[in-house]
Amino acid sequence: MFTLNSNSELAKEMAEYLGCELGKSSVTRFSDGEIQIHIDDSVRGSDVFLVQSTSEPINEHIMELLIMIDALKRASAKNINVVMPYFSYARQDRKARSREPITAKLIANLLETAGASRVITLDFHAPQAQGFFDIPVEHLTGIPILSSYFKDKGLEDIVIVAPHNGGVVRARKMASLLNAPIALIDRRRPEHDESEIMNIIGNIDGKTAIIIDDLIDTATTITSGANALMERGAKAVYACCTHPVFSGDAISKIESSVIKELVVTNTILHPQDKLIEKITTLSVAPLLVEAIDRVHNQKAVSPLFE
Amino acid sequence: MFTLNSNSELAKEMAEYLGCELGKSSVTRFSDGEIQIHIDDSVRGSDVFLVQSTSEPINEHIMELLIMIDALKRASAKNINVVMPYFSYARQDRKARSREPITAKLIANLLETAGASRVITLDFHAPQAQGFFDIPVEHLTGIPILSSYFKDKGLEDIVIVAPHNGGVVRARKMASLLNAPIALIDRRRPEHDESEIMNIIGNIDGKTAIIIDDLIDTATTITSGANALMERGAKAVYACCTHPVFSGDAISKIESSVIKELVVTNTILHPQDKLIEKITTLSVAPLLVEAIDRVHNQKAVSPLFE
Amino acid sequence: MFTLNSNSELAKEMAEYLGCELGKSSVTRFSDGEIQIHIDDSVRGSDVFLVQSTSEPINEHIMELLIMIDALKRASAKNINVVMPYFSYARQDRKARSREPITAKLIANLLETAGASRVITLDFHAPQAQGFFDIPVEHLTGIPILSSYFKDKGLEDIVIVAPHNGGVVRARKMASLLNAPIALIDRRRPEHDESEIMNIIGNIDGKTAIIIDDLIDTATTITSGANALMERGAKAVYACCTHPVFSGDAISKIESSVIKELVVTNTILHPQDKLIEKITTLSVAPLLVEAIDRVHNQKAVSPLFE
Amino acid sequence: MFTLNSNSELAKEMAEYLGCELGKSSVTRFSDGEIQIHIDDSVRGSDVFLVQSTSEPINEHIMELLIMIDALKRASAKNINVVMPYFSYARQDRKARSREPITAKLIANLLETAGASRVITLDFHAPQAQGFFDIPVEHLTGIPILSSYFKDKGLEDIVIVAPHNGGVVRARKMASLLNAPIALIDRRRPEHDESEIMNIIGNIDGKTAIIIDDLIDTATTITSGANALMERGAKAVYACCTHPVFSGDAISKIESSVIKELVVTNTILHPQDKLIEKITTLSVAPLLVEAIDRVHNQKAVSPLFE
Amino acid sequence: MFTLNSNSELAKEMAEYLGCELGKSSVTRFSDGEIQIHIDDSVRGSDVFLVQSTSEPINEHIMELLIMIDALKRASAKNINVVMPYFSYARQDRKARSREPITAKLIANLLETAGASRVITLDFHAPQAQGFFDIPVEHLTGIPILSSYFKDKGLEDIVIVAPHNGGVVRARKMASLLNAPIALIDRRRPEHDESEIMNIIGNIDGKTAIIIDDLIDTATTITSGANALMERGAKAVYACCTHPVFSGDAISKIESSVIKELVVTNTILHPQDKLIEKITTLSVAPLLVEAIDRVHNQKAVSPLFE
Amino acid sequence: MFTLNSNSELAKEMAEYLGCELGKSSVTRFSDGEIQIHIDDSVRGSDVFLVQSTSEPINEHIMELLIMIDALKRASAKNINVVMPYFSYARQDRKARSREPITAKLIANLLETAGASRVITLDFHAPQAQGFFDIPVEHLTGIPILSSYFKDKGLEDIVIVAPHNGGVVRARKMASLLNAPIALIDRRRPEHDESEIMNIIGNIDGKTAIIIDDLIDTATTITSGANALMERGAKAVYACCTHPVFSGDAISKIESSVIKELVVTNTILHPQDKLIEKITTLSVAPLLVEAIDRVHNQKAVSPLFE
Repeated sequence: MFTLNSNSELAKEMAEYLGCELGKSSVTRFSDGEIQIHIDDSVRGSDVFLVQSTSEPINEHIMELLIMIDALKRASAKNINVVMPYFSYARQDRKARSREPITAKLIANLLETAGASRVITLDFHAPQAQGFFDIPVEHLTGIPILSSYFKDKGLEDIVIVAPHNGGVVRARKMASLLNAPIALIDRRRPEHDESEIMNIIGNIDGKTAIIIDDLIDTATTITSGANALMERGAKAVYACCTHPVFSGDAISKIESSVIKELVVTNTILHPQDKLIEKITTLSVAPLLVEAIDRVHNQKAVSPLFE
Repeated sequence: MFTLNSNSELAKEMAEYLGCELGKSSVTRFSDGEIQIHIDDSVRGSDVFLVQSTSEPINEHIMELLIMIDALKRASAKNINVVMPYFSYARQDRKARSREPITAKLIANLLETAGASRVITLDFHAPQAQGFFDIPVEHLTGIPILSSYFKDKGLEDIVIVAPHNGGVVRARKMASLLNAPIALIDRRRPEHDESEIMNIIGNIDGKTAIIIDDLIDTATTITSGANALMERGAKAVYACCTHPVFSGDAISKIESSVIKELVVTNTILHPQDKLIEKITTLSVAPLLVEAIDRVHNQKAVSPLFE
Repeated sequence: MFTLNSNSELAKEMAEYLGCELGKSSVTRFSDGEIQIHIDDSVRGSDVFLVQSTSEPINEHIMELLIMIDALKRASAKNINVVMPYFSYARQDRKARSREPITAKLIANLLETAGASRVITLDFHAPQAQGFFDIPVEHLTGIPILSSYFKDKGLEDIVIVAPHNGGVVRARKMASLLNAPIALIDRRRPEHDESEIMNIIGNIDGKTAIIIDDLIDTATTITSGANALMERGAKAVYACCTHPVFSGDAISKIESSVIKELVVTNTILHPQDKLIEKITTLSVAPLLVEAIDRVHNQKAVSPLFE
Repeated sequence: MFTLNSNSELAKEMAEYLGCELGKSSVTRFSDGEIQIHIDDSVRGSDVFLVQSTSEPINEHIMELLIMIDALKRASAKNINVVMPYFSYARQDRKARSREPITAKLIANLLETAGASRVITLDFHAPQAQGFFDIPVEHLTGIPILSSYFKDKGLEDIVIVAPHNGGVVRARKMASLLNAPIALIDRRRPEHDESEIMNIIGNIDGKTAIIIDDLIDTATTITSGANALMERGAKAVYACCTHPVFSGDAISKIESSVIKELVVTNTILHPQDKLIEKITTLSVAPLLVEAIDRVHNQKAVSPLFE
Repeated sequence: MFTLNSNSELAKEMAEYLGCELGKSSVTRFSDGEIQIHIDDSVRGSDVFLVQSTSEPINEHIMELLIMIDALKRASAKNINVVMPYFSYARQDRKARSREPITAKLIANLLETAGASRVITLDFHAPQAQGFFDIPVEHLTGIPILSSYFKDKGLEDIVIVAPHNGGVVRARKMASLLNAPIALIDRRRPEHDESEIMNIIGNIDGKTAIIIDDLIDTATTITSGANALMERGAKAVYACCTHPVFSGDAISKIESSVIKELVVTNTILHPQDKLIEKITTLSVAPLLVEAIDRVHNQKAVSPLFE
Repeated sequence: MFTLNSNSELAKEMAEYLGCELGKSSVTRFSDGEIQIHIDDSVRGSDVFLVQSTSEPINEHIMELLIMIDALKRASAKNINVVMPYFSYARQDRKARSREPITAKLIANLLETAGASRVITLDFHAPQAQGFFDIPVEHLTGIPILSSYFKDKGLEDIVIVAPHNGGVVRARKMASLLNAPIALIDRRRPEHDESEIMNIIGNIDGKTAIIIDDLIDTATTITSGANALMERGAKAVYACCTHPVFSGDAISKIESSVIKELVVTNTILHPQDKLIEKITTLSVAPLLVEAIDRVHNQKAVSPLFE
């Protein structure tokens, strides 16, 4: 198992679970910014698991990953299993307007060109992104981990809320695990320059709302949604997501929001001080380790989805 | 422009708009079911537009399409533009369970292998299917056509309804065109063997509901949804979709349902007698013709999305 | 080992020989005709043998096969060995006229694109079809099985007859195994609209003729040939082929023909009642099982050709 | 139009017909045998026709061809049309025994890898070789040219003879053009070490036989066949083929044989003195020129097959 | 013609020469660092020239380029000509040690996968990098531009110096243009931890030395080399290169060095204040414009190399 | 392990070291020059090492190699490791002029297309040729073997000489192993038609010079260089290279030259009588055997480079 620069803590935690050591390799920068990679241990004929979240700085992390795959391929690794807890650009998965790229597909193509033999990841923005690959994809989900946490918390009279129109299927999945109803924040922009209007669809009155999304980026969606929920009568608002992107002033927005607690996973590494008290981080290491173990020993991965 | 067996009426209508004749080719069956294709006119160096909806019999139509593409490629056509008003298997666009295929991606790969240079289609089940292709895809939508029809109808106090959790984004798009609110039919199955439970989320009381979906297959979803809407207080229920698959006893279910009028397009051909009075069919020929014209003359296709 | 819908009896027979159970999978149809495949057992890292004859309904069977391969590939099967006792479209292996497809090559390309790693088949229409693949092909032949049957029968003064100009090499192969002379039915059509003229080339007078072909489709060629042979002095006419396609009214033509006995193999499954008394079916299961065993255990397959 | 080393006379003749000059390029050898190619004229954006028969020295000519294609591709030629009047290795088109290559398919793959966009050739050993390519192939035939010659000659009571079991379809094609019957020389080898036995199948008694084959290599088959025909009562024997390979002592065998006249085409260049009086050479230049003209001007090539 | 973020000044200069306007597109960053690209003008059927030097921040610029190519491909551009005045990672063009990547080849593969149809660039680190591509590469050189400058300067008794063992061929090329002798700075490191030893090979005594390299990165090589030259008797030291990478404290090293004047080209953009007085910048815009003009109008590019 | 025709002695020597027998296969020529290959032993599932130097006759040897790879691939070999002690066409690794091929890259592409899984070779002309492949390349070097020989010889006051401008890096590598200084023979041609001028750069006066190159072809470069060295004061001249191509009258040039001893390796086989007394041949068999052993047993190959 090898790790790159993006989330070495998660990789270390995974290595501990697996009772193995991380392969030695150096990933450094030349003075002009070129990435320099050298693998210290022989990987000839090995079944390599390479851990890299393509979190910020996104493009640097993608290039590191591609170059490392090239090095592993030329060093005769048998299989190059790419473990991407967070797969960036996943939102650019279709042409929303004319003359746009489909960057998520491009990344999939680049990974295959470089020489990846498999991808293990969590919660794509849309599950269709699995089909961007012709190599096997193990598409895991953090929703059961998040749901368990809230189940253990023992909240009562809850409603699971999709923070935007595209999030209803995900909310329904969590709601089924928690045996709860769902609601939806319907957003629209009447004219091009006018500000967004939010309608709450579904009954939230007096209920404890749990907003769920695949990722939280600038936190505008989730905090504005939380405000709307409180204004329209929710008793309390919790939120959760798999991927805590937290870009820009996301943390301060969350801090000052009406959200009581935000539960995320550690697919993306953040410095300890950034993770304010309101934010609870759950580890996906056991899930990923179980998946790696099953892939390496050629056992079915399907039990992880049950 | 060539047409295959699936929807020759639409192709003829398109040829009339374009003021051109359909290319001559024969697509027949040998006695044992093998498809036999012969192209009568030279296509050497031509920019060919090949019209085929992969409607029932689906697999026959797909094989016809692939074999025709092979024949065109070997006959030195310059570009093979595949016009698929309806793209079947589009719902099999991710692994919902372990060890399932992603058939929509497979079809995309098969089309590219056979030699297609471009795909022109309408309303994928999920827009991410555009990314299954590495060739350009012109992904048109029938929603404006359906919306215009309802706008002209002058219905009042309407609400656009997504018939299942995955349809909210589509409902929102139509709602914005008609300046209407949305509602959602939230479906779940408490235990594996129990029957499905439907909740209406959003306000439909006394309103005229218009259900929108990408396609209507067995019509169970749309008719059960319509019933639920009437039971919970809707004043009337209309329905619409781009692709009228109408398999099994869909027509009789629609006939006997509370749906007042069902509006569809002609991406899939049905015999005249199947199209009961309740069903209104709008033509996508002008839209497709405009797209073909723009592609052929290398003008921007983007105005079609505005 | 997995089987699809085309010839499950042969697959079951093969599984018995191998002393293994068939892998569990379901291949069903949605109401609109879309194929739905689910594999029940884990195939991760397995050397899978997938049995499917692409017999009638041909295009359905090809699509089933392609979709199953996609499912196996995404489920991380190590090798996907496609066992196609009968490979349809094999006659479309060249452009006989301008602007025709070469469908046999297309099918080869589609199988490789879907993810097949090897093909095991019997008696292509032309042996050159092996070269349509870049993956290994084990091209077995049923001629020794058919020859053995006739040898055991103890017919005397026989002549092996090619029923058309393209079948002489095959007749020569059988004649060498049976130490017999050959004859040829030379067919031509003087003008485009006139009916076919048959000449017998070679000595058949007073001899027992055995006609051999790779497949019998509508049975016109073989029954008209048998008639000609009897008219020109043959004592009796037997016939044989590897692939009993039997389309249209083939069975009734055979029933009412002068053919005394028709010997075929079970590469294509037919209902019991279709197989009239005149038709003898020999099993290719032992041959296929031996090939699979040798492939799986990495032993030479060449002894099967001796 | 460019020519390489194999058959520059044919290329010059073609250029004269086309009224164009051959493109300037040098194809030389370094002292150690490495091929050195330099193209003098700019080919940027051009529709290039590159003439090379892969005649003796075969492997040198193939490598010249591949290297020239690479040079044209990197020099930004728009289309690289490979004109191979004779395609060597065409007989290695299937695995006759285990662990043999399919070299004809390999050559097809190499041409596509190097960058060929189309192949124009004459009379493959088996027409299935067309399917070895995924690029368009214009597969012309010299049979009408050979047939015309014999028609003009006014021979009477002729029979067209296939010199071995695999040549009957070709003989039938010529026989139909000349309105003649066919016969077949059936060859077999009783035991591995014994010498070949030839049977004449069909009536040749007192007739003028014309043997036809795709190519004449060592001339053993055709001269031994001619002897057998004369011994069994033929009045005279003529022979013809498209590709005069003439390897080993072919010429002296032909010279001393009972063959009265051997008619070939100029797909392969031979020094004038090698072409003894008995051998008549017909030019395929007009046929190739017509094909090139039609390809270049995007007209149907099909009239050439009628 | 489109430009990305790396060197828009050069692109603007080129557009002026060409008398055309730059295509409109926006390349922005989402808050989390994801690149967002939108092309404003239709490029359907166009012959696009896309200008991007992959200078610092290198990985960001590479990803911008790949994503833009994907957008152009999906927007149906006819040809995507990538103009990379500076191609980064060109020094990682072989495995110097075991288990290293060959990143320059990887970048070539990524460009082809994304959809580039041609690359126009200047002075690779090693000319062999042209062979990393299977698409045409126009490999221009800035050496004549640099040489002309020095010729016009009228320096006397000059010697061209290669600053390290790998630079002799380049020095020889410049020396031939200036009719001068060459010298070489031979560098070696006696033991792994010891400091580098420089020997001057060739006669520099009393001469004016011009050091030439393909790029100047940290400027250590060139400034230490210049010192060595002065110490061993050179009269004056000039330096030049095509690609001014100038990473780290390169500028201050140059400023304080014995180098009298450093001549570079504008393949990489630097802020005006970074370009100290000692540094002379020559424009490659005329050269690139000429190449683009010739490619677009399908004229030979070769005159640019004379 | 299999060997082809080029250097069976080296292969035999390697097999002895490995204590294994060479696989049985026949590589013969048909009368017309077509290569005929048959593999006698089963290779199904094997890790095959195939030894072939692409020495004279170069193009024959390349075609043999490609055809053998095709045969092995179709015979289901697991890995096809191509051992090319000498890789011809390595000097054609860039476009030196417009409209030239990059034949070394073409050869790399052809090998991958045919089905090679790995290449093991020695001393490419430029190390960048490793990047022409996307399969792993083990790029070994003969320089330590040559250096050891000279070290054991105990020559004093030596200087390592690059015989042309492109060979300085190689000379530096040998010089570091022998702790010696370097010198360079700078060659240039003032005008196109004038003869080459050689300058010696570096101090050789009274020293024993050892010229090193990757290969010696016509021997003009090395013998003219040796003369120049003696004329300008060298005490004695030795020479060495990895690949003794020895084309044309190379041997007689060497014989009559001032070179005292020429040391080469056995990557290319020469008849015993060609190897005059002056030439010492060192074996690379132990190096190749060690590499094969490490590849086969999945151990690091890196120790071979230390």
